[in-house]
Amino acid sequence: MQNFEYCTPTRLIFGKGVIEKLPGVMAQFGKKILLTYGGGSIKKIGLYQKVLELLKGFEIVELPGIQPNPKYDPSVLDGVRLCKEHKVDVILSAGGGSVLDCSKAIAAGACYEGEPWDLISYKVQATSALPIVDILTLAATGSEYDCGGVISRTETNDKIGYIDPLLFPAVSFLDPVYTFTVSKGQTAAGIADAMNHILEQYFCEDATLMNDGFCEAGLKSLMVNGMKCLENPEDYTARAEMMFVCTLACNNIMSLGNSESGWPMHGIEHALSGYYDITHGWGLAIITPRWMQHILSERTLPRFVKYGVNVFGIDTSLDPWEIARKAIEETYKFFESIGIPMHLRELGIDNSRIDEMAHHVAVNEGLENAYVPLTEQDIRKILIKSL
Amino acid sequence: MQNFEYCTPTRLIFGKGVIEKLPGVMAQFGKKILLTYGGGSIKKIGLYQKVLELLKGFEIVELPGIQPNPKYDPSVLDGVRLCKEHKVDVILSAGGGSVLDCSKAIAAGACYEGEPWDLISYKVQATSALPIVDILTLAATGSEYDCGGVISRTETNDKIGYIDPLLFPAVSFLDPVYTFTVSKGQTAAGIADAMNHILEQYFCEDATLMNDGFCEAGLKSLMVNGMKCLENPEDYTARAEMMFVCTLACNNIMSLGNSESGWPMHGIEHALSGYYDITHGWGLAIITPRWMQHILSERTLPRFVKYGVNVFGIDTSLDPWEIARKAIEETYKFFESIGIPMHLRELGIDNSRIDEMAHHVAVNEGLENAYVPLTEQDIRKILIKSL
Repeated sequence: MQNFEYCTPTRLIFGKGVIEKLPGVMAQFGKKILLTYGGGSIKKIGLYQKVLELLKGFEIVELPGIQPNPKYDPSVLDGVRLCKEHKVDVILSAGGGSVLDCSKAIAAGACYEGEPWDLISYKVQATSALPIVDILTLAATGSEYDCGGVISRTETNDKIGYIDPLLFPAVSFLDPVYTFTVSKGQTAAGIADAMNHILEQYFCEDATLMNDGFCEAGLKSLMVNGMKCLENPEDYTARAEMMFVCTLACNNIMSLGNSESGWPMHGIEHALSGYYDITHGWGLAIITPRWMQHILSERTLPRFVKYGVNVFGIDTSLDPWEIARKAIEETYKFFESIGIPMHLRELGIDNSRIDEMAHHVAVNEGLENAYVPLTEQDIRKILIKSL
Repeated sequence: MQNFEYCTPTRLIFGKGVIEKLPGVMAQFGKKILLTYGGGSIKKIGLYQKVLELLKGFEIVELPGIQPNPKYDPSVLDGVRLCKEHKVDVILSAGGGSVLDCSKAIAAGACYEGEPWDLISYKVQATSALPIVDILTLAATGSEYDCGGVISRTETNDKIGYIDPLLFPAVSFLDPVYTFTVSKGQTAAGIADAMNHILEQYFCEDATLMNDGFCEAGLKSLMVNGMKCLENPEDYTARAEMMFVCTLACNNIMSLGNSESGWPMHGIEHALSGYYDITHGWGLAIITPRWMQHILSERTLPRFVKYGVNVFGIDTSLDPWEIARKAIEETYKFFESIGIPMHLRELGIDNSRIDEMAHHVAVNEGLENAYVPLTEQDIRKILIKSL
């Protein structure tokens, strides 16, 4: 078991109707709020109107239009400018992981005199950040319970995971009802995203018994409850459990003390959505079984066997290699069954930039230190298999 | 799935040699430290000397001699007096759960002008508390990651669980090496204590798939690693995993969103150790299978079947009632196998105060609202079966 440090100070307020506690929570942080959101789905579900009604008496500045794979320019830059102009006390993020990720970069940028990219690119270490409260409307990224955000800079194809303990949300409101209207495609992407977060933690050299069971339970729960959400989008219990598993899936609580895995599938996927702006969860679902096939070896076999037996219930009496291959096949089939296009070409990606992406990943993602070290050539092979 | 709130702001610093970070951590809180500890085992393992050496330059006041089932008088009262006299900035608890529980009550009492019992008995709500840092030397209670402490007041046989979010330790140092010298009896008590914490969460009306898997993994890990700790007290990996499972077992993270169970076994055990000052973990181990037998019914059967199959690997093709009975038997046998005396009479408890204890529990512990509601008569039956 490895040494570790862990602290997640975020207060989770979970369940139906918890939004009523919003005014009391916001009042702890001040009067001037930057309200961040995306393309307007919060208006369709009535959340926008509810927030304004609850926060009468507060001064609210709005930053709408934050896109999936949130952009440094204009979203982060606009947000920072608004915070400085209006001397904002606290950011209220209403939306999914992208809105929240963007809000985190804004929170840090607002307390820094220079160019916010200095912080995101780790040229300068942030020393303070505005407090962040979020109201989640999409179960997927786990950004509501971690201190990271992924920001894309279009002109350089950069997609950087910006992580700083200053960026934990102070409070996360999690009402599963707000996810009832999430489309089938986005629900499936959320399932795949969270499953991949768990798999990135599960596939490592050295894991504790408890973490393995915790991860396996999270994976099974996401498959069972995710499927129920797709069959009946208003199944409260399924939406609730899916939301909560997603929340725990990305903040390391499932792998404390395990050896580092290096999160290789995310490393590869960041190039895909950096170059092509595809849905992150879909990209991960496509990469996952190809990465698994690529790293299956005598050394990794026992881990695949454990995964196959405990997650998919594959018969333990089979040959270990057969169990491992079946486990990978089941992973692929599950993603396919929830409607995810399982080839990059279905998302309009051909082989024209594979070499460039493989090179970008090899240079920027440090995958030579992953659970199974990946060279540029390995990354290229995984991308080609994914086409 | 039930609504919930959750926030555990404690910073965990886990692993071999982490004590070297102590001076930097303590400096955040001030110069004047109340060092609390127990019967002197921290001197035998060299931790006391190490702490003094690392904290040269700090002003240290000591409160030694805190007993298991820590006492309001003299420990809490002495600690509060010392904090006030010396204007202590921060409490450093070096020991097991009892030292830490006592330190929590002191932390609250030190910031209150009246009688500390007002706080512990919930007559008055604390408004502030001194920060607490702990160095854990015993894997058991999980006090290092929760905001509660259990305090005994001898003259009234009261044993009160005092819970307040102000009482989360700011920082918990968890070095498994400090648990190498824990005796077999205390190691077994720690295993039973943590297993019972998980069972109290697992046996409820409505649990999520993920929580069930998390709890089952915790239980299996405690049995496997606990046994290894008993066989080889210096097995670092086993001590480490046991320590970490104990840390997570008592702060609700394993049951967020589950329905309330009411922690009935703890309710009953608090009377036992309140009246007879027995080792808490042993008391819990004795109560557990008797409580299970008592509540097994048509309604609870599916939960016992799940427990038996997933934790003990009992053959699913057996009759459900047989699975349930086997699961209870396996629970009993496991506690017996780790050397716990499984009858109250072995701890010097006879039937002379059973009625009194049953009445005390019925009046004070609210078990009429437990997962399976318990009347005074039910509690009496469970105690008699435990003799």
